[in-house]
Amino acid sequence: MKKKLYNTKILNEKFIINNFFKKLNFNKKETFYFENDSAFLNFKKNKKLIVNTDTIIENVDFFKGDNPSSIAHKIISINLSDLSAMGGLPYCYTLSLCLPKKIDYEWLKVFSNKLLYLQKKFNFFLLGGDLSKSKNIVVTSTFFGISKVNKIISQNKFNLNDDIWITGNLGESLAGFKFIKNKFYNFHDTKLINYFKKKYYYPKACILGSKISRYCNSAKDISDGFFVDLSKMLNNNYGASINLNNIPISTKVQKLIKLNILTKDEILSWGDDYELIIIIPKKYENTIQKISRLNNTKITKVGSIINKKGIHLDSKKIIKSFKYFDHFF
Amino acid sequence: MKKKLYNTKILNEKFIINNFFKKLNFNKKETFYFENDSAFLNFKKNKKLIVNTDTIIENVDFFKGDNPSSIAHKIISINLSDLSAMGGLPYCYTLSLCLPKKIDYEWLKVFSNKLLYLQKKFNFFLLGGDLSKSKNIVVTSTFFGISKVNKIISQNKFNLNDDIWITGNLGESLAGFKFIKNKFYNFHDTKLINYFKKKYYYPKACILGSKISRYCNSAKDISDGFFVDLSKMLNNNYGASINLNNIPISTKVQKLIKLNILTKDEILSWGDDYELIIIIPKKYENTIQKISRLNNTKITKVGSIINKKGIHLDSKKIIKSFKYFDHFF
Repeated sequence: MKKKLYNTKILNEKFIINNFFKKLNFNKKETFYFENDSAFLNFKKNKKLIVNTDTIIENVDFFKGDNPSSIAHKIISINLSDLSAMGGLPYCYTLSLCLPKKIDYEWLKVFSNKLLYLQKKFNFFLLGGDLSKSKNIVVTSTFFGISKVNKIISQNKFNLNDDIWITGNLGESLAGFKFIKNKFYNFHDTKLINYFKKKYYYPKACILGSKISRYCNSAKDISDGFFVDLSKMLNNNYGASINLNNIPISTKVQKLIKLNILTKDEILSWGDDYELIIIIPKKYENTIQKISRLNNTKITKVGSIINKKGIHLDSKKIIKSFKYFDHFF
Repeated sequence: MKKKLYNTKILNEKFIINNFFKKLNFNKKETFYFENDSAFLNFKKNKKLIVNTDTIIENVDFFKGDNPSSIAHKIISINLSDLSAMGGLPYCYTLSLCLPKKIDYEWLKVFSNKLLYLQKKFNFFLLGGDLSKSKNIVVTSTFFGISKVNKIISQNKFNLNDDIWITGNLGESLAGFKFIKNKFYNFHDTKLINYFKKKYYYPKACILGSKISRYCNSAKDISDGFFVDLSKMLNNNYGASINLNNIPISTKVQKLIKLNILTKDEILSWGDDYELIIIIPKKYENTIQKISRLNNTKITKVGSIINKKGIHLDSKKIIKSFKYFDHFF
């Protein structure tokens, strides 16, 4: 009878970590007790080495037949936004590639050239890796990052009244995904459709984290959607008051919302933009805005930390729980 | 027409690394220029941090339905033998788990408990990780190891006349694999069959490397078979003279050879024993034997480094190339 407790609804990621994997961290500080997406190691003259692992899988994180350039872009972007959220810059990475028979010379060339391009752009190198045969493409990367100011940004350490900010715009990658999956007969702007598709295939990871780490209390990349990721940051200790009108959505995406091609709710539950949620003390507002301007990165204040638990939307609707979002099986 | 050059025969692992990935190491010493299975990072007071990544996949590295305890054992053993070959002891690791829907509570419990058991036994901790959904089980682990004497053993740096040694016995895991795959009507010793099956499901990684690192020039774990791995060590610079009679094979496996259940050739081309090939200057022979006795680990001299390229078996047959072993697709 006991087994009935652990049905598919309850067996979510958090449950799995707490029940099976938490014991494995031996309470080492370096693991952040598995409450962060990344971990660190002490590194040279008290420098911290940030470590992050992510996997992307065919038919789950990208479509079968997607351009290898896009797959390479995604495995790097996912990791860069994670490093950025911890205030780090990439130093090097390992790559574990599980590849099916269909992979050919051209695929590997395009894939590796895109990696090379990104390595040069962001100045990091491939440390080593592993090649395996498999039915579907599975790419795992462990990234090592270094924080210049030697501060690792936590995911859930902040204070009451701190402000909540979002980098960039949300929803562009989702729009691309929708146009790849479906035809919308009320929308014919091919140029704009291709713009959105590109946003899905080549999302630009926000790397502002390392620039603002000394001013912010917490940060997290949006990988599961704004609601879920903010909820993870709140960690059931605080609440957040969010002004929905302030959520940064481009005029291009606003157009799609008006045509019912996507909704704001969908946008806030979608994670492929690789933007950051940042929680900052009010006193640093001007500093942060100056840095974001200097780095040509949009940053928008969307709310603040309050002492009532849950996510409070426009001081009305309250979202208390996200169980339905993060179940694993 | 150019594409024809890169057909399935030529597109092997080495080719892929040289043509697509070598450019990505930016000539950093830490990558060993991708000539080793592992890499290192400089770590605290000039300590080296050894980094190693390995992936195991359902239906490739283990059977569908295999006990999760065996899968956990394998992902750890593969990495421990790699660390050992570089002279390192495990410090921590990351784990990327791609799991299909069939995975349940019991599976995760058994899997994580086995990890816990091995972590306690060898004193390392889980640093972080990643969970994904997939069709088949794919487990990737990045291991971080530390060398106490601060010497990383190379895979292919040694001198003429150095001796070649093998730890443990070869072929027991292969025997287990054969009994799982087939029925042999001329062999009915159930106790022995179960002994071999256990050797396949729970191979014991040889961790002698860290104990003898200051005395040996090169080491490598046997992951693709003795011939292939020795050939990789020789790196087409030297040759090896091997005395086939000295290859360490247990009396239990000798029995199977006599019954034609497996052959010596198969044993030397099979990699799941996680034993080490070690190349040592002759002057350390007594020291090595003493250390292996103290650590209760069998070690056998099987040959030596000569200046004629290829692997010379009993001074007769010469194996020059292993292309047919290491093709990737």
